[in-house]
Amino acid sequence: MGETNQSASQKQRNEMWGGRFAEGPSAIMRAINNSLSFDKRLAIEDVEGSLAHAAMLGECGIIAKEDVQAITKGLKAIEQELMAGTFPFREDYEDIHMNIEKRLQELIGEPALRLHTARSRNDQAATDTRLWLRKQIDGQLGALLAYEKALLAQADRHFDLPMPGYTHLQMAQPVSFGHHLMAYQAMGERDYQRLAAARSTVNQSPLGAAALAGTPYPINREHTAKALGFERVLANSMDAVGSRDFILEYLCAIAISAVNFSRLADEIVLWSNDRFGFIRLPDNLSTGSSIMPQKRNPDAAELVRAKAARLWGAVQTMAMVTKALPLTYSKDLQEDKESLFEAVDQFNLILAAMTAMVEGLIPNKDRLRAGLSQGFPTATDLADWLVRNLGKPFREAHHITGSLVKLAEQKGLDISELSLADMQSIEPLINASVFQALTIEASLNARQSQGGTAPARVKEAIAAARISWQARQDLRKEL
Amino acid sequence: MGETNQSASQKQRNEMWGGRFAEGPSAIMRAINNSLSFDKRLAIEDVEGSLAHAAMLGECGIIAKEDVQAITKGLKAIEQELMAGTFPFREDYEDIHMNIEKRLQELIGEPALRLHTARSRNDQAATDTRLWLRKQIDGQLGALLAYEKALLAQADRHFDLPMPGYTHLQMAQPVSFGHHLMAYQAMGERDYQRLAAARSTVNQSPLGAAALAGTPYPINREHTAKALGFERVLANSMDAVGSRDFILEYLCAIAISAVNFSRLADEIVLWSNDRFGFIRLPDNLSTGSSIMPQKRNPDAAELVRAKAARLWGAVQTMAMVTKALPLTYSKDLQEDKESLFEAVDQFNLILAAMTAMVEGLIPNKDRLRAGLSQGFPTATDLADWLVRNLGKPFREAHHITGSLVKLAEQKGLDISELSLADMQSIEPLINASVFQALTIEASLNARQSQGGTAPARVKEAIAAARISWQARQDLRKEL
Amino acid sequence: MGETNQSASQKQRNEMWGGRFAEGPSAIMRAINNSLSFDKRLAIEDVEGSLAHAAMLGECGIIAKEDVQAITKGLKAIEQELMAGTFPFREDYEDIHMNIEKRLQELIGEPALRLHTARSRNDQAATDTRLWLRKQIDGQLGALLAYEKALLAQADRHFDLPMPGYTHLQMAQPVSFGHHLMAYQAMGERDYQRLAAARSTVNQSPLGAAALAGTPYPINREHTAKALGFERVLANSMDAVGSRDFILEYLCAIAISAVNFSRLADEIVLWSNDRFGFIRLPDNLSTGSSIMPQKRNPDAAELVRAKAARLWGAVQTMAMVTKALPLTYSKDLQEDKESLFEAVDQFNLILAAMTAMVEGLIPNKDRLRAGLSQGFPTATDLADWLVRNLGKPFREAHHITGSLVKLAEQKGLDISELSLADMQSIEPLINASVFQALTIEASLNARQSQGGTAPARVKEAIAAARISWQARQDLRKEL
Amino acid sequence: MGETNQSASQKQRNEMWGGRFAEGPSAIMRAINNSLSFDKRLAIEDVEGSLAHAAMLGECGIIAKEDVQAITKGLKAIEQELMAGTFPFREDYEDIHMNIEKRLQELIGEPALRLHTARSRNDQAATDTRLWLRKQIDGQLGALLAYEKALLAQADRHFDLPMPGYTHLQMAQPVSFGHHLMAYQAMGERDYQRLAAARSTVNQSPLGAAALAGTPYPINREHTAKALGFERVLANSMDAVGSRDFILEYLCAIAISAVNFSRLADEIVLWSNDRFGFIRLPDNLSTGSSIMPQKRNPDAAELVRAKAARLWGAVQTMAMVTKALPLTYSKDLQEDKESLFEAVDQFNLILAAMTAMVEGLIPNKDRLRAGLSQGFPTATDLADWLVRNLGKPFREAHHITGSLVKLAEQKGLDISELSLADMQSIEPLINASVFQALTIEASLNARQSQGGTAPARVKEAIAAARISWQARQDLRKEL
Repeated sequence: MGETNQSASQKQRNEMWGGRFAEGPSAIMRAINNSLSFDKRLAIEDVEGSLAHAAMLGECGIIAKEDVQAITKGLKAIEQELMAGTFPFREDYEDIHMNIEKRLQELIGEPALRLHTARSRNDQAATDTRLWLRKQIDGQLGALLAYEKALLAQADRHFDLPMPGYTHLQMAQPVSFGHHLMAYQAMGERDYQRLAAARSTVNQSPLGAAALAGTPYPINREHTAKALGFERVLANSMDAVGSRDFILEYLCAIAISAVNFSRLADEIVLWSNDRFGFIRLPDNLSTGSSIMPQKRNPDAAELVRAKAARLWGAVQTMAMVTKALPLTYSKDLQEDKESLFEAVDQFNLILAAMTAMVEGLIPNKDRLRAGLSQGFPTATDLADWLVRNLGKPFREAHHITGSLVKLAEQKGLDISELSLADMQSIEPLINASVFQALTIEASLNARQSQGGTAPARVKEAIAAARISWQARQDLRKEL
Repeated sequence: MGETNQSASQKQRNEMWGGRFAEGPSAIMRAINNSLSFDKRLAIEDVEGSLAHAAMLGECGIIAKEDVQAITKGLKAIEQELMAGTFPFREDYEDIHMNIEKRLQELIGEPALRLHTARSRNDQAATDTRLWLRKQIDGQLGALLAYEKALLAQADRHFDLPMPGYTHLQMAQPVSFGHHLMAYQAMGERDYQRLAAARSTVNQSPLGAAALAGTPYPINREHTAKALGFERVLANSMDAVGSRDFILEYLCAIAISAVNFSRLADEIVLWSNDRFGFIRLPDNLSTGSSIMPQKRNPDAAELVRAKAARLWGAVQTMAMVTKALPLTYSKDLQEDKESLFEAVDQFNLILAAMTAMVEGLIPNKDRLRAGLSQGFPTATDLADWLVRNLGKPFREAHHITGSLVKLAEQKGLDISELSLADMQSIEPLINASVFQALTIEASLNARQSQGGTAPARVKEAIAAARISWQARQDLRKEL
Repeated sequence: MGETNQSASQKQRNEMWGGRFAEGPSAIMRAINNSLSFDKRLAIEDVEGSLAHAAMLGECGIIAKEDVQAITKGLKAIEQELMAGTFPFREDYEDIHMNIEKRLQELIGEPALRLHTARSRNDQAATDTRLWLRKQIDGQLGALLAYEKALLAQADRHFDLPMPGYTHLQMAQPVSFGHHLMAYQAMGERDYQRLAAARSTVNQSPLGAAALAGTPYPINREHTAKALGFERVLANSMDAVGSRDFILEYLCAIAISAVNFSRLADEIVLWSNDRFGFIRLPDNLSTGSSIMPQKRNPDAAELVRAKAARLWGAVQTMAMVTKALPLTYSKDLQEDKESLFEAVDQFNLILAAMTAMVEGLIPNKDRLRAGLSQGFPTATDLADWLVRNLGKPFREAHHITGSLVKLAEQKGLDISELSLADMQSIEPLINASVFQALTIEASLNARQSQGGTAPARVKEAIAAARISWQARQDLRKEL
Repeated sequence: MGETNQSASQKQRNEMWGGRFAEGPSAIMRAINNSLSFDKRLAIEDVEGSLAHAAMLGECGIIAKEDVQAITKGLKAIEQELMAGTFPFREDYEDIHMNIEKRLQELIGEPALRLHTARSRNDQAATDTRLWLRKQIDGQLGALLAYEKALLAQADRHFDLPMPGYTHLQMAQPVSFGHHLMAYQAMGERDYQRLAAARSTVNQSPLGAAALAGTPYPINREHTAKALGFERVLANSMDAVGSRDFILEYLCAIAISAVNFSRLADEIVLWSNDRFGFIRLPDNLSTGSSIMPQKRNPDAAELVRAKAARLWGAVQTMAMVTKALPLTYSKDLQEDKESLFEAVDQFNLILAAMTAMVEGLIPNKDRLRAGLSQGFPTATDLADWLVRNLGKPFREAHHITGSLVKLAEQKGLDISELSLADMQSIEPLINASVFQALTIEASLNARQSQGGTAPARVKEAIAAARISWQARQDLRKEL
């Protein structure tokens, strides 16, 4: 920003609205006001919107068919230039809209001056942003499906592989590695629904709202909305140009999703630590150290974790920009774009990195099992056995188990390693059948309740999730 | 917090999980850990959840029917105590769940110890929170409808009342007061959709997930889900107890809505300023000053504006609490409640205050008209006239209008007050019919495009919005 | 909030500014506007401010000495009532200021009506808030010193106890437990400086700014500032009543501090996990589980971690409340208090809990040593040995070490367990003296650079920190 | 980000730490991990840091003098290339540090491999960031002084120009335009102090902390700290590489400042609205509209207002990145840079734009006076007159004034326009001398209290502020 050289452009009068101004905008005004450096990302969408607008103007008899043809030809040439990277961006024109309009004028002359009829930069910019964001969301919905697919594959492979299940990061009960991953699949499915809902809010047409009040030309907003693939026309012209809650809703959706991702990323960092050693990331997803040659750093997971924070920074920015802003368009709203673009880029990186990590990670069975060797993972199973076999009320069973854990801890044993005599010293009614309930496998298999970690339940959950996945995948293909 | 007297309770051993601990928790531990002061708001929902759980335990043969009867009777007595304000809350029991379980034990004795079978505080707390939040959302959806209704009534009353339409808080074009309000109705409708979507995410049952892994008891999660009015059972037990994105989604939904409210609140503050004088708030929504007797302060609007900020504080809190948190339940998640409760309360205040202000505000026709006396509100109409009547390309028409505005400004006139000769000095082809296009009414009526401010369009928009309103209202009644 | 019963008060006319209003404020207005429920925390400071104000009014001849005496006597009686808990708070008076003024009027009659001369609620509320906050900060500065003291004691006890030093949560190099804790001491010292700076910003007097413009009475602002212990008088009356950056600066200071605390809290959670087992928290700082009797949950650490998030919620709230707010006082600023009060309370809990945990935690030497058995903790020492003994450029030494680590990994050995032959197979010049450099103790002792982990350096760092600590402690005592 | 072409580099093995990795990092890994695109902004500082480090290595006898000479010569050549824009940045080397080290190797061969002795990227990156940020802060401190200077000049010009003073954006009392601006000068001075404090926290040396534990080489950290202009050496090596609260403190300082700026920006937007018309921005700080030729939009002020939000986004990001992050360096900390760089750039724009606006704005005396024609600006003066001349207690005087305002409002008059008879109908003791107190000038002049708006007080305040300004300016020059 501070580095861009604007000396040439500072001497220029602003072409678009300068007619009434005695002197050109000052250097700082150019520096703060110019949006071309970032809104050039909307170039293709600006052309698309103009093509639809021009066609509609022709259909409705607002400009001549010949003008429409000239404009269409010129815009398509510009599209080619943009694709080929030959479009001559000029800082003199403050934004992408003026760059394209001026280029059109160079290419086709006078008809270009008719394109902006019944339109304003206010509805134009909102249209471009929505079109661009819709494309990005479509890519991200696809990427979320790819991530879920990776989770489902790993979960399926390890549906019955035991690992410690933690609460408070303390040993609680055994769960299966697949079951653990399926928790993230459940989150991913909700993330998908939120993002799909945001797409629907985004996918509404502001075009034709003009500056803020509508336009006296006999335009057809349904026509352009349909041509551009919008679901519907926004019903109020002031809302259409002045609202940005569609961006805020989108940002919240991906930021919530990023929090879910950050949790798995944090676990990957944890599991990669040698004290855990629960997984190994492939070489191509690890990095080394400039000073410590032995390091295998889970950089990608760490970056995902941190990038989640950046998305919330974007949320905070957008909320604070729009809070208490009177209607309709204020220049404040130009500040939506850089935050949005960055958030989109960051979320794309998050999606790709997480999918690669989930695909590539390899659980270490021995270390996962070692993780179950401490912390009395089957203490709850003991309490449940007392309830189910001795008819103890749960609270009493809980108390007895507590005493047995204390005894085992003193002896440096797992509760499954206590002798029957030891057990009976606390609760005389305990019999030898208790030991069958205290193995890891027994514990896992016992949790047959709906949504539980018993391998059979995990298999069922995977099958059900695949049906949901396929339905969403089919829907994507239709778009 | 710092003020609560806990001296009595500090000497107590913790009743629930203290069996294995040699000494009681220290004073700071009690102070930081005790959640009763806030989670008591979940008391009724805790009873509801327990009633459903007990009934299911009986149906599934996990506890005896007589126990179910005793538990049910006891819980209903507790519900009565809670309603009557006679329930004996005790700080010694760290949270609402233990308070109710202990009270149940006092009332019915040993069967109370069986209630917690196949359940954990983890799924219990999540269930309570979801039930409570669902109720709150239902109230807020109703309140949003009331707000929209107030907007629709005001918009209908003033569908053709002209006022300045601003961009950059600068005069742009005339709009109608009704049209302006309908922009907020459009936002309100999106707010409603977001809140309804959040309700659906909230309304899923974690009950039966137990601590994190499911339970070995032959429970029926569909049974409790149905009894408690949940839409579905959460599919993964670890997700069920460890996820809080349902809270984050809710908070984002209301915080986005609060931003929309803050914009109208800001306009109310602005319009109440004597330079504008566009509206008058009723006496019962204004306050005075301790030192300046003439003040009529729009406090309620200012507070709404500020409370929007508090909701975003709650959003950021919740995002930051859950970011990078490993599965499953960690005590960090206890910090969800105070922020959530406060956000719910604040949003309720926002909803009530905004509805009252919208109902009560009275636009001042003279001052609104005075607001149109400066700033060339029909300049765009002049440009459009040049396009439509003289066939000028829009960009050229825009340039001519700029010159005419400059001339009018020099003469201290509105453009409609320029003589024909003056106009022709800039553009010789202009004729006298131009003046018909330059009245406020003509400008307003001209904007007949879909969603535009022409009074006929505003009427249509109100009618369409009422249909949407009624459909949602009907849906509410069914619940 | 929603639960408070205000039926009685709703029928009341507002006593303070209601003279001109035809009807009383509506129920929602009372609900949203009433601040007594939270600003009652400022009661003592309100009395203190009024005592100083009344004395000054008397000194300057603005009110009669007899009036001053009556007011002083009345205010002292009120102070007693507040201390004793017998002050009759009344919801009918919307805030603490009116409650005290009205009570004063009950106690002393007409002179009470003279107290508000040359003052406004605007400067009064700002004064109260600053006085209250200054007291809180003083307590927190003391608590920070206590925390640092606890760190210093633990660091001293374990200045040479080896533990794994991580980067990326991957084994990097051995450090001492004391050195690790001293990193937090360094952060604590910066936290202290930020909080002390915030105190200085807070400790400036707005009293006498009146509503916004100053006052025509011949007051003496230096007089009241001195009486109330303020460092200086705020130089501009509009700034004095309209600015809240003193709150924002304070909130940022404690929120940054809370992030530092959250990092140690996270490590405590990690270290308490059985895979690490690096420390044991005392029983009175751990909690159990309702369903899993073996749990020793580090709840306090988890809550500290989460409460850091709440402080940032308060920061964002306050920033968003004041952003783009025109001068001077707007009711938005009333929303400063609840966020501030909550943040103060939460930070107090954080300080107390962290100090208790640092005091009570017991490192487990065996587990810390076990943590050094994997991950090649002395690989850097090997690289450094190659540089220092064989004259290899660092980058080449790094490469050789990488190959040796790979070899050791293949053999399942630590690098110190490789044979000399193995080493020479990669780098023939290596000789047997290398093994002396590869012990944990040698590694620790080698890092003699300033600020390094060599035990001698840690001892020095502790001594230096104690001098800084004492200097600040002495300064505290003077206040 | 998504647009960068990395196809070439994807096939490359990572040069720095790849020795142990069987395959090169995958494409996503490169995309997410590569920081060159942004950390190239630290290039000059990286060279500066290396120059100091090499000199110290030579002084301490760690590397040969000839090596130091070669390194120094090479680094200076690189500095020239960077200045000239000819430095060959290569994506293959993941960050700026490796780019420069590799380039050095090209230029000077083997001695380059010795530069990284006794250093790690961890302390190197922290050093570069601190050096870079210190330079930026110095520029910003200067820019803040320029802004204050502009405020002082405008305030001096208009120290007695009356304008409405608002609370709740409602007429309260007259103030002078100069007094109003001086409120912002007072804020600016606090902003300066906070930024200067942050500079001090930033300006501490991490160099020599190495990876995290210090280094076995006999380095001299004081030497490099002094050479690089740091105030002191950071006392703990783990803190030195693992802490980022220096960034958070800086971001909070500028973000608080940005909130203060946003308030003036909001007032500029308000005052530029034609209902107010209080000021006129010069042409070169206004922009026009593509569709409405008459617009003079205060874009710069709107952008300042919005950019304040982006700074808080950066704050939130940085707080959330570092919250709960275990020691020491984690890759999460790489995410500090883009947010920091952007925040610095945005704040630079804010500073420049606000200074230009304050310099260029021209108050409109007539419109400011018109702003005082409504809303009873001297009502407080009437109340004060009643206290001072009739000896009424303030509360009673307030009540009488309220009745008089009501009467004046009914008659459509200002209170100064009421007849004496009207006044006496409410309060018989009022006499004709009251009218002298009710002029705008009398009101302004009356507020002679310290910090009040009486022109003489404003003059004094300006003089005092100029002394503070000069003292800080002198301090700047010394640096």
